[in-house]
Order: sequence, then C-alpha cells, then structure tokens
Amino acid sequence: MSYARGRLITLEGGEGAGKTTQARFIAAWLRAQGREVVTTREPGGSPLAEAIRRLVLADWNEGVAPITELLLIFAARSAHLQATVLPALQRGCDVVCDRFVDASWAYQGAGRGVEAHKLAAIEQMVLGDLRPDLTLVFDIDPSVGLARAQGRGDTNRFEAETLAFMQRVRQAYLDRAASEPQRCVVIDASLPSDAVGERIQKILEQRL
Amino acid sequence: MSYARGRLITLEGGEGAGKTTQARFIAAWLRAQGREVVTTREPGGSPLAEAIRRLVLADWNEGVAPITELLLIFAARSAHLQATVLPALQRGCDVVCDRFVDASWAYQGAGRGVEAHKLAAIEQMVLGDLRPDLTLVFDIDPSVGLARAQGRGDTNRFEAETLAFMQRVRQAYLDRAASEPQRCVVIDASLPSDAVGERIQKILEQRL
Repeated sequence: MSYARGRLITLEGGEGAGKTTQARFIAAWLRAQGREVVTTREPGGSPLAEAIRRLVLADWNEGVAPITELLLIFAARSAHLQATVLPALQRGCDVVCDRFVDASWAYQGAGRGVEAHKLAAIEQMVLGDLRPDLTLVFDIDPSVGLARAQGRGDTNRFEAETLAFMQRVRQAYLDRAASEPQRCVVIDASLPSDAVGERIQKILEQRL
Repeated sequence: MSYARGRLITLEGGEGAGKTTQARFIAAWLRAQGREVVTTREPGGSPLAEAIRRLVLADWNEGVAPITELLLIFAARSAHLQATVLPALQRGCDVVCDRFVDASWAYQGAGRGVEAHKLAAIEQMVLGDLRPDLTLVFDIDPSVGLARAQGRGDTNRFEAETLAFMQRVRQAYLDRAASEPQRCVVIDASLPSDAVGERIQKILEQRL
C-alpha cells in the first residue's frame, strides 16, 4: 500500500483537553492553504467503527477485559482506516483525526496494562507502516480536564476511570511525545482556547 | 489461570450442518451423566459478545476487511471467555459451545485469507493455553448445508458467501481435524439427525 499524498494529523490527549475545538481550527487553517480536509475521530469515523465505539464506551455488567477492549478499539481502527482514512489520504486529502493509535498505547497500554508486545503486534497487523505525519498532544492535568469533560455532560466508561488511570494515560502521552519529537508536539491545553489556537497555528506553519 | 474441572466441548462446521440440534442432544447426555452443563455459542455467548455478533453478521456498505472481522470475532471470543466459558469451567460445569476457535481458522483464515501468523498471535493473546477437550466437526457438502440454512430463512453475511469460500472452510475443518485426532472427531452431517445422534453418543461414551 502507498499512503502517498495526503497528510495524517492526529490530536491526542485526555478528556476535556479541547481537542474537538482545535480540530476544527486545524481543518480551517488547512483549507485556507488550499488543502482538501477530512475531519474524523477514533474510536469511530465510519458507520461500522461508530457502532463499535458505542459498544466500547457503554457500561457492561459483565465488564470489559483489557484485551477485549484492545481488540474492539483496533477493529474500529481497522474499519476506519479502510473506509475513511486511507481512501482520503490516497486521493490527496489531509486527514485530521481526533485520537488515533497513540491513544491505544496511552489508554489500553498504560491505562489498562495491556503488554507492549501484544499492542505492537496488533498495531502492525492493522496499521502496517502507516503513522501520523504530525501528532499534537494536548496536555492537561487530568483533574482539570475531567471537570471540563463532566461539565459537558457526556461522560462515558473512560471518563468514569480513576485519577490514577488518567495520570498513567497522561504520562504515556508525554513519554511517547518525548521519544518521537519529529512527529509529536506537546501543547499546554490548560491555556485559554485562543492561546492554544495561536500555538497550533505556529506549529502548523513550521511543520506542514 | 487454571481451567480445571469442567470440560469444553465444541461443535464446528459449516452452515446447515445440524450443530444446534446436536448441541442440545450432547447437553442432555451430559446432564444424564450427572454433569452441570452450560450451552453457548460463538460469536456470542455474553451480552457484549452477542452485540459484537450482530455487528459481524450485519451487512455494511463500507464492507468488512478480513482483519477487521478477525479482530471483532476475537473480541467477542474474549468477552465470551471472561463472562461465560471460564467461570463455568472453573466451577466444574461442562461447556458445550456451538463454534469456537477452529471456526476462526476455517472462516477468517482459510475463508478470508488472513495469514496464519496473525491468527496464531491473536489466538495466543485471547486463549492462552485453553483448547477444547473435544471438538466435533460436522462435515457436510456446502451446497447441501447452505440449502438447509437458507430453508431456515436466517441467512447472514457468511451464508451469502460463495460456494468456493464454503469449500475452503470445509477443507480447513477437515485438515484441522486430521492434524489433531486426539481432540477432533469428524461426523458425517449428511446422515439423518437420529443417526448423527447415535454416532455422537458413541463418541461421548468413548471420549468423555
């Protein structure tokens, strides 16, 4: 497979970090540069993947084992890639995606404790060599982000997690960003939305 | 994990092979021996796994890539194991399951062409060392089985597959049975139901 022309830009971070607002800003900036843009999200981004998302976010009395969650998340990712992301990249569109594979390393890996070798094996099966061209990591104190997310009233199974879980997720994102500085930029998401937007604009101008 | 006392008995085979009827017969035979029995099926067997089953069997305009299907099937299997199969085995119940992991080798492997190394890796993640104690492979000419299944009126995405697909599934089941004779027994499912039942009873008396 060739993932030629379009660029894949992913937004990562915990709950309430303002990713959705900034994804719209990034798409508008890219369109102003004359690019075609597809904005999408994970888990989700195709009808099948959105149906899987509903299963993953729902509460199940039987519980959801970490490996079950991982398989569902990657099943959704696989459907999303096939139906939405790869066709867009191949026809030259940029894709702006709210959460992508780094989220699996943060949530299912660091958060739930799925071993790295399992995650890496499934990642390879689903992504092959595809990686984002640019990843913006929205960093915020989990207690602040969670209060924001709960203020929106759309809590789910992940937002009901412990603060210790959220701290592991945050640290995993920071560690990944530090280990791949050519791909990842950390953004202080505690700043006002306008200030975050200005910072992102500078990053886009430098990197894209 | 210890999968101590209960025995896992799986029924495998293509569409319209009569597995459902014979699963009831096997459960009745086991209960007559004083065993507690849980009868279940895959994909499915727990609320989450049944919800995944509905996604897997549905028609999606976007299509379902083989790797997506594999991940969904094993996500359902993982949920089913955690919620239903392992707790039953651990409290000493026998479990009679209509389709299990051999079905993934037949349908997603031989049928869809997913590579063996991918299947083996995910199998190891989800099953660990668990394997059925006895597997009955219901063998029938796919064109006969399909006519039976369609006569029931419950066709799905798999039953809409080509005869060539069904032939690959059949051959994969026969090959697996031949390679693991201590676990697997092939049953001629073209015989009348009563004759199949008699054959199964003999197998159960010999093997369990």
